Amino acid sequence: MTTNPLNSENLLLAFLSEFKEIDASQLSKIASLIPVECYEKGTVLIEEGSRVHHCYYVLKGCLRQYQLVDGIEKTTRLYVERQPVAFFNAYTQQSPVDVFVECAEDSVLIVGDVRSETTMYEEFPVLQQITRKMMEEDFGKMQESFAKFIISTPEQRYQDLLEKRPDLLQRIPQNQLASYIGVTPESLSHIRKRLGTR
Amino acid sequence: MTTNPLNSENLLLAFLSEFKEIDASQLSKIASLIPVECYEKGTVLIEEGSRVHHCYYVLKGCLRQYQLVDGIEKTTRLYVERQPVAFFNAYTQQSPVDVFVECAEDSVLIVGDVRSETTMYEEFPVLQQITRKMMEEDFGKMQESFAKFIISTPEQRYQDLLEKRPDLLQRIPQNQLASYIGVTPESLSHIRKRLGTR
Repeated sequence: MTTNPLNSENLLLAFLSEFKEIDASQLSKIASLIPVECYEKGTVLIEEGSRVHHCYYVLKGCLRQYQLVDGIEKTTRLYVERQPVAFFNAYTQQSPVDVFVECAEDSVLIVGDVRSETTMYEEFPVLQQITRKMMEEDFGKMQESFAKFIISTPEQRYQDLLEKRPDLLQRIPQNQLASYIGVTPESLSHIRKRLGTR
Repeated sequence: MTTNPLNSENLLLAFLSEFKEIDASQLSKIASLIPVECYEKGTVLIEEGSRVHHCYYVLKGCLRQYQLVDGIEKTTRLYVERQPVAFFNAYTQQSPVDVFVECAEDSVLIVGDVRSETTMYEEFPVLQQITRKMMEEDFGKMQESFAKFIISTPEQRYQDLLEKRPDLLQRIPQNQLASYIGVTPESLSHIRKRLGTR
């Protein structure tokens, strides 16, 4: 955790005020109940093998999820602004997570504790509605990404990033991005060379 | 749709009664509001390019999701018992879906209409709670599957199916299963030969 140069309170209020479901009169009360934290680039939020009770929501920044395969970090997911970070299997089965999640940039995150969410939902049912919407949106996107990953080649995946997620290419080093499209860093270099994006 | 040899009513009641959140006195009332349909093997539930307002939940049977790539069917997801089938991007953006979903077996499905879900949730808030739990469970599983797909080879994916989802190998023809682990049917034959599972 770090000091607050990114003005986390304003980020939270701006985010919450986008939901027409939240009555303006309840906005500051709800905001005061939602913990927001700032983390420095490089902070490891989740360690493989640990038990996780927290979920996150990216207000600002970028998180990288990776797994160690034969000692090598393989990036399996990237989270940017307006994405939830949740590990439902770990919450419900109370089993350790099998991934690492680290801050790829200085980040401002909503930090939720799943052990107290029921109480919060009871007090503010609107939050359950909002959470469901956010999850559904993310679910839909992940479903599409997974299907697209299956039917495409690494080169197509890279071209897709170039077109639709050019920000990721700036935010994540090439060696960490390679496994995310299913290739080694060397193969990614070849792909970039072929596509003339070096 | 077909006649009802699979006893869909009992399947629905058995399913609903697993949720301790539902009060026994409300069970038959709630069940009467939930449409359940039987579909014959081969029925195409969702066509690429169509607008979708329905979600499904598999009580019995198996559905296959695929996309056409250069005229060839590529399986991108399989749904079996106790899995929701939902396309949130299509609901919220009102854009056409880019996949086909067909019944790989005679199937009994809960059929939900997303246009009327709000009314239903208002009448029975417990259904919103249950839906959220189901989605979270499926979300967690898909997240794990996607990460595993990224870090594994087709041979590892096949071995994983052999160990954890042997039912799928029986239920889905080999030529439809191949793309699901990211290879051609010919490569899957080679993998099976190498592993001695022919």
